[in-house]
Amino acid sequence: MTNHPVAPTAPTTFRPPRIPEVQVGGFWGRHIDAVADKTVSILYDRCLAAGMFDQIDPSRPVPEMRLPFHRRTDGSNDTVTAQMFWDSDVAKVIEAAAYALYRRPNPALEAKMDGIIDMLGALQQPDGYLNSWYIRMQPGKRWTNLRDCHELYCAGHLMEAAVAYHQATGKRKLLDVMIRYADHIDQVFGPKPSQKQGYCGHEEIELALVRLARETGEQRYMDLAKFFIDARGQQPHYFDLEAKARGDDPSRFAHGTFEYNQSHLPVRQQTKVVGHAVRAMYLYSGMADIAAEYGDDSLTDALEILWDDVTGKQMYVTGGIGPAARNEGFTDYYDLPNDTAYAETCAAVGLAFWASRMLGRQPDRRYADIMEQALYNGALSGLSADGSRFFYENPLESHGHHHRWDWHRCPCCPPNIARLVASIGTYMYGVADNAVAVHLYGESTARLEVAGTPITVTQNTQYPWDGAIRMTLNLSQPTRFTLSLRIPGWCTAPEISVGSERMATDTVGALGYLAIEREWRDGDSVDLVLPMSIAMLRAHPKVRQDIGRVAVARGPLIYCLEETDNGGHLNAIVLGSATEAVKTQPIPEFDGALSVSMAALRTETGGWNGHLYRADPPKSSPTEARFVPYHLWDNRNPGEMLVWVRAQA
Amino acid sequence: MTNHPVAPTAPTTFRPPRIPEVQVGGFWGRHIDAVADKTVSILYDRCLAAGMFDQIDPSRPVPEMRLPFHRRTDGSNDTVTAQMFWDSDVAKVIEAAAYALYRRPNPALEAKMDGIIDMLGALQQPDGYLNSWYIRMQPGKRWTNLRDCHELYCAGHLMEAAVAYHQATGKRKLLDVMIRYADHIDQVFGPKPSQKQGYCGHEEIELALVRLARETGEQRYMDLAKFFIDARGQQPHYFDLEAKARGDDPSRFAHGTFEYNQSHLPVRQQTKVVGHAVRAMYLYSGMADIAAEYGDDSLTDALEILWDDVTGKQMYVTGGIGPAARNEGFTDYYDLPNDTAYAETCAAVGLAFWASRMLGRQPDRRYADIMEQALYNGALSGLSADGSRFFYENPLESHGHHHRWDWHRCPCCPPNIARLVASIGTYMYGVADNAVAVHLYGESTARLEVAGTPITVTQNTQYPWDGAIRMTLNLSQPTRFTLSLRIPGWCTAPEISVGSERMATDTVGALGYLAIEREWRDGDSVDLVLPMSIAMLRAHPKVRQDIGRVAVARGPLIYCLEETDNGGHLNAIVLGSATEAVKTQPIPEFDGALSVSMAALRTETGGWNGHLYRADPPKSSPTEARFVPYHLWDNRNPGEMLVWVRAQA
Repeated sequence: MTNHPVAPTAPTTFRPPRIPEVQVGGFWGRHIDAVADKTVSILYDRCLAAGMFDQIDPSRPVPEMRLPFHRRTDGSNDTVTAQMFWDSDVAKVIEAAAYALYRRPNPALEAKMDGIIDMLGALQQPDGYLNSWYIRMQPGKRWTNLRDCHELYCAGHLMEAAVAYHQATGKRKLLDVMIRYADHIDQVFGPKPSQKQGYCGHEEIELALVRLARETGEQRYMDLAKFFIDARGQQPHYFDLEAKARGDDPSRFAHGTFEYNQSHLPVRQQTKVVGHAVRAMYLYSGMADIAAEYGDDSLTDALEILWDDVTGKQMYVTGGIGPAARNEGFTDYYDLPNDTAYAETCAAVGLAFWASRMLGRQPDRRYADIMEQALYNGALSGLSADGSRFFYENPLESHGHHHRWDWHRCPCCPPNIARLVASIGTYMYGVADNAVAVHLYGESTARLEVAGTPITVTQNTQYPWDGAIRMTLNLSQPTRFTLSLRIPGWCTAPEISVGSERMATDTVGALGYLAIEREWRDGDSVDLVLPMSIAMLRAHPKVRQDIGRVAVARGPLIYCLEETDNGGHLNAIVLGSATEAVKTQPIPEFDGALSVSMAALRTETGGWNGHLYRADPPKSSPTEARFVPYHLWDNRNPGEMLVWVRAQA
Repeated sequence: MTNHPVAPTAPTTFRPPRIPEVQVGGFWGRHIDAVADKTVSILYDRCLAAGMFDQIDPSRPVPEMRLPFHRRTDGSNDTVTAQMFWDSDVAKVIEAAAYALYRRPNPALEAKMDGIIDMLGALQQPDGYLNSWYIRMQPGKRWTNLRDCHELYCAGHLMEAAVAYHQATGKRKLLDVMIRYADHIDQVFGPKPSQKQGYCGHEEIELALVRLARETGEQRYMDLAKFFIDARGQQPHYFDLEAKARGDDPSRFAHGTFEYNQSHLPVRQQTKVVGHAVRAMYLYSGMADIAAEYGDDSLTDALEILWDDVTGKQMYVTGGIGPAARNEGFTDYYDLPNDTAYAETCAAVGLAFWASRMLGRQPDRRYADIMEQALYNGALSGLSADGSRFFYENPLESHGHHHRWDWHRCPCCPPNIARLVASIGTYMYGVADNAVAVHLYGESTARLEVAGTPITVTQNTQYPWDGAIRMTLNLSQPTRFTLSLRIPGWCTAPEISVGSERMATDTVGALGYLAIEREWRDGDSVDLVLPMSIAMLRAHPKVRQDIGRVAVARGPLIYCLEETDNGGHLNAIVLGSATEAVKTQPIPEFDGALSVSMAALRTETGGWNGHLYRADPPKSSPTEARFVPYHLWDNRNPGEMLVWVRAQA
């Protein structure tokens, strides 16, 4: 396996480790095992049942069109169907399977994936083009509707799958297929007059081309990613030109405004996070990659504004984003309804993608803290504890009617959370020429190369249930480099020792990392204690839905009340502000997990004699409120759930 | 003008006065003037602009079909269009205009109404049938889809218009037209094997036939109303038979369940208020009329259960009902979202209709209190103070995006609130053989007949701004009858004097009326003082959206905060529980209206440094909260609005 670095133009670029380089145990290890044991085979079976392979396999009859995806407001059917992006769903299944195969050999699963890859190879056109919808369902229409039809998006996901499968299995077939397709796309799209100056309505290929460039060492792919980013939102608007060219009225865009796909302005002029949440996250991820690879401050400047915009005014405390189903995306500032929250799993996954890439220029907990927040809460909630069921929407309040799906008509989330969980090790570290940054903590072993020396970083910890982390370094020779350790913003009293030397906490830098530059030797150890205290979080008072309420957090985990532990009418529970009497206890159903219990009041619901309104305030009685981690909700008895709980004073 | 009583089979039936019998001033008088001066001419103009008269007038070319109203879930268009119920909208305009003409002669307006009536007369078929949609747009299809197409509903509204126009102008033309149509319907529908055993998917004709029977003295119309009520929901289900008969699949009902139109069960077996809110209210109104006219305890028993169900578990504090847009109706018990409340104006109007008819058997403030609550709040909010603009939805919280309409695609609400306001006098009294009940207070003069004697009841009052009411009776001869005065449930310390005699408040009966049976003499007076104290209302704690919040009420009026008085972020305001320091002050923009101000705290929104979440509770600072009556909101500067305000403790 090769890993040719593309020559960076920036002085320091932190890149994620490759999948096989980090072996994860503990908390995430259990979830990865669930993905490897259950999720990937479920994903394959559901793709099969949906008929996806009938569409991809050129040896089978062309299937009928089905599953119309959205309709015009005048009632006519649009041409957009879920089938148009099936290639992407299949690609994400291959990617998740690749990570599972790396963790654990599974010849039967590998044979299924090889079978899909053979179909894709057979489907690929002589010129390299590869898209099952436009080859089989709508031949002759390729590259005519980038705005709506997910064509480059599908290519991007297949590129990611190819990189992952290559890294995990060493097999090059899909990688070679996608190199040919990337070369074709690189010919069709670009700044030359003979090329199309277009880009995809659903961003994804930008970050995928970066991954492909890193895996293959091919600078053209990196430059093509940069082209797609630079071209986006320029005038005359490509989507208008393209609509006219195919005989459509450009004003008949189902989503009204190009804010929907973040092409309303050139990307460097964008200051507000708008539109479809997943699209936005994928775009910013690609921008962050390009900013890091090219040392492009103009992109970084734009991204920092956008980052503050979404995390400061538009993000749920779970790291979920995109409150509205209408546009699967953003609405007004501070508009974060809890019970109707869309907060698509894919959007929290995308926020983790973006955050991780913002760490490409330097370690900065502004990004890593949010990455951790999204990973442990709004993203992981999308996958049941046993890996078999899925959330598409991730509300922060449920009245008992919201439950996990076996599958979804638009099946983007299940493979997305599966591939994220199974590749979590690559989010833990950032590796530069002379530096290693530790962004996330968790039981794991990473085999990295820094300053030309292979090193092994072993973390022994029960994180996030316990905040004690012992980190051991093994090196073949003493090597000088900087080890940067993230000190999470939620941690008020960290303790750090390097060997036997206790570090003063004022050595933590302004960006929230403790940078230890020294000559490291084999067997050196670092001990961190990040006390898992309970925080009663408040939302900005402009968030009307959360005002007067608190969210309980323990370390990186957001907690919630469930009916199965607390009875119904969860909004009748009122918390005090004292956290002294908080108890943590194991949750029997989930190995290692801890519940949090505290004294509270319960507003009594009796004694109203059939009246709905009265002047007497209702009485309250003492109760105990038991919280469980948000990501674990709806894994036991179904019922109500509540994150933001009423608080006294 | 004649008013032939239909022989009641019940010992006592309280009937509303006819429109010309009550002349209203004061609070309601101003609103009636707005309707007479502005609303009715706006209504006429908007009907004209919508093309309604092109459809009705047989001398014009048949117009094209337009305005598809809802679509099947498979994307195909249903045959239902707004045009199908245009007759009802025109009818309600005639009805509102009739009341306006009674208040104030307006020859130009009367000529327009006569013009419409001439069109209707010309349109009527030789057999009496009269429906512009089925005569002009879909000839040959009459009576084939009672479930969806509002055919009898339109007939009902035209009957109500005919009665009102006859009462107000003395002109019989529309009344005679509708008598012919009612006779036709009475031949087509009924229990005989040769007749259709059907009923309308949108109830309305039941209560209209009662009005027509009372106006004409024709018992057949009363019996037909009873037939429609008795037939509803019987098996085999008429809507299924009818669908099969026209070649449709009965299961392809757009709304899924017959709960939508309250035909899921025979009406006497219904115990839960479900489905489309306006339909439900109109059905129960008709049932209550029939219960009173026939002394039918089986209907009354069902209605009492339904009454408790809606007012005890499903009604906004404004008297608004039907929280969901999806079915324009009811959802789960205690599910009363404030910002997304549908709470259609027509539904609150319908609740007032039903409540007033529940008073047909005996005075009972259980009904009259709710009638008053709906009238002054959730119904009246549908009409701007000047009578020119309209709310369709009446939420209890707005973030600044909800404003009054000039018109609505489905224009049912504007004429509905107009006709209610302009006929408010008929809701104030109930008249039986030897009794007069006063249900509502307000500056007015009523000319009634009781125990064979014409009497005049004059109320002098600033109600609801002030609770002092002087009631003077004028009679041509001393007459013994019972005068029943409602003592509102919201009034904790009423004072009542008959002449100079102070009545003990324990003389108020169990049903909340003070019944004074005596020989009344000319010039007798009754003085009521109903102190307008401020109440801080709480909702039942199962209403999760209101828990920890209070609604401010003063007498029958629910108050709200508006941004124009209090600045933005109304949810930052927190009320104490003390009401001692409350100030009432005139609102300069609205003659006679009073605001309510009290000390409060405001959660400070500054100092978050770009963060969205933190552990520190936000600080508060003292402020004054200024409330205005809910029905007056969005009449001044647009902005946020809030009824349920956060409360300490």
